[in-house]
Amino acid sequence: MSERITAAQAADALRAADRILILTHQYPDGDTLGSGFALCRALQQLGKTARVECADTIPDKYSFLFEGLPLPAFEPAFICSVDVADPRLLGKRLEAFADRIELCIDHHASNTAYARHLLLDAGCAATAELIYAVIRELGVPLNRATAEGLYTGIATDTGCFRYSNTTAATHRIAADLMEAGVRADPINRVMFDIKSRSRVELERLALESMRFYLDGRCAVMLVTTGMVQESGAGENDMEGLAPLPRQIEGVWVGVTMRQKEDGGFKVSVRSGHHADASAICARLGGGGHVRAAGCALPGPAAQAVDRILEAVRQTVPGIEG
Amino acid sequence: MSERITAAQAADALRAADRILILTHQYPDGDTLGSGFALCRALQQLGKTARVECADTIPDKYSFLFEGLPLPAFEPAFICSVDVADPRLLGKRLEAFADRIELCIDHHASNTAYARHLLLDAGCAATAELIYAVIRELGVPLNRATAEGLYTGIATDTGCFRYSNTTAATHRIAADLMEAGVRADPINRVMFDIKSRSRVELERLALESMRFYLDGRCAVMLVTTGMVQESGAGENDMEGLAPLPRQIEGVWVGVTMRQKEDGGFKVSVRSGHHADASAICARLGGGGHVRAAGCALPGPAAQAVDRILEAVRQTVPGIEG
Repeated sequence: MSERITAAQAADALRAADRILILTHQYPDGDTLGSGFALCRALQQLGKTARVECADTIPDKYSFLFEGLPLPAFEPAFICSVDVADPRLLGKRLEAFADRIELCIDHHASNTAYARHLLLDAGCAATAELIYAVIRELGVPLNRATAEGLYTGIATDTGCFRYSNTTAATHRIAADLMEAGVRADPINRVMFDIKSRSRVELERLALESMRFYLDGRCAVMLVTTGMVQESGAGENDMEGLAPLPRQIEGVWVGVTMRQKEDGGFKVSVRSGHHADASAICARLGGGGHVRAAGCALPGPAAQAVDRILEAVRQTVPGIEG
Repeated sequence: MSERITAAQAADALRAADRILILTHQYPDGDTLGSGFALCRALQQLGKTARVECADTIPDKYSFLFEGLPLPAFEPAFICSVDVADPRLLGKRLEAFADRIELCIDHHASNTAYARHLLLDAGCAATAELIYAVIRELGVPLNRATAEGLYTGIATDTGCFRYSNTTAATHRIAADLMEAGVRADPINRVMFDIKSRSRVELERLALESMRFYLDGRCAVMLVTTGMVQESGAGENDMEGLAPLPRQIEGVWVGVTMRQKEDGGFKVSVRSGHHADASAICARLGGGGHVRAAGCALPGPAAQAVDRILEAVRQTVPGIEG
């Protein structure tokens, strides 16, 4: 069980430490990487020896986060994890560090309190908001590169200030980061705008497969292995497909069915305030959050769709059909 | 020619006035309507008689902006336009007011200075930022409904804080508005998420038409009258199509060609920092901004594409082919 600490106490601990290893989670995203590299830059500004590690290869689009940053080899004397809710999320290559973590900085309510000290605020939209607070407490001037790391973390975890986790505090921090020189436009273009040609083609094929049920309240989109092959899409191109069906006017329950190699389906369910995605998926042996949940179903597709519609009918009040 | 005034002076003028008619621009968007209704609410809080008018029918998705707001009939004694860069943009039904406008509040650098007094700041991402300043100067407490109008204006004109016009000041204002109780999540869902079925179908057909030229640096998407008919799309469904080609990896110049009834094309050009859209369109008899410009070209499509590619080749340094 962790001892809960404040941002000021986390800053004290880091100030007293050296040879600091910062750990990010596997399948890294903008928040874990932006937070990690921003903290690393601030610690190096203080004269500390510090580096960031990730179990997975860092996707190219995040490479600006460590541009010009020395990442020295050293035997760590203090280990800090950022945005890592559970030590299993460190990934195979870093799991050996799991029980030596001195400090964890995180915003996930589900944090398993595995570190000796824990700075946790589930009210923060991103871990980067907490790193911002720690850097302020460290008294290090916020330079552009550090601010861009924090901005990237906040922007990616809030869908660029669109998701409901965005607060007044999120916007105030963003304002400070912009004043520190953040070039938000190229960051947002890379994070939110650019799609590969294969991704656009896959999206087109998937949209073509979309069918409506239950008086238009339920939309089901199919992503088959054939479509993936035809489009030439890779694993990175799958991101962000699941929300598409629910974006359609009148849809309460949006379903994306991704075909697996064995012919079964990985099912993602998204819902608005009319429906509970986790309740729908629970009936199908899955689970998740109220607005976003998932389950696995065997094929063929038509049978899987029938089972999903049955679960929707039994779960969503006022749905027709 | 207008006399340029400050937000404090605009507030003084409004405080001294009554029976205030607020005019918005035709083809209304979130900024003109959000600004107009927010200002109207603040003036009514001050005890003024005020209403908002728009030459066009206000799309349903904006109806929350005037929920519960009385819009009384009266003979105007003071006319104020918001987000209207040119009196011709008032539209047919309101053009009679064009030379009686006492105050214009706007953020377009291209404002024609048609009003007696002009509060203009082209550095503001949205006219709503200026209305925020005026309401602050009026000393009216910011209630939720007013704040939601201002938030809508800012969110729509910045693509939810994504476009390069977003500044630190934009984020600080957004923070204040959130603290005044703005429910950003449903607003953003309506403004950015929800698409009609026809729109999704039109997008699919348009994506299918996309072709790449000049070593993949130029993408051209066609929206024919046939596609519009087949999808059942209306005028509202056309919004936001033009940025799609430039979102594709490697594309410097994204072109959307919308077929008109006469067989000619309305051409929208979007560019990144590698290319100047306004220079490309200037060669084709059009114009606009550096990143977003337009022109009109006669058909057939293949010929129009050839002319566009020629203009791109002559204008963009380092483009292949």
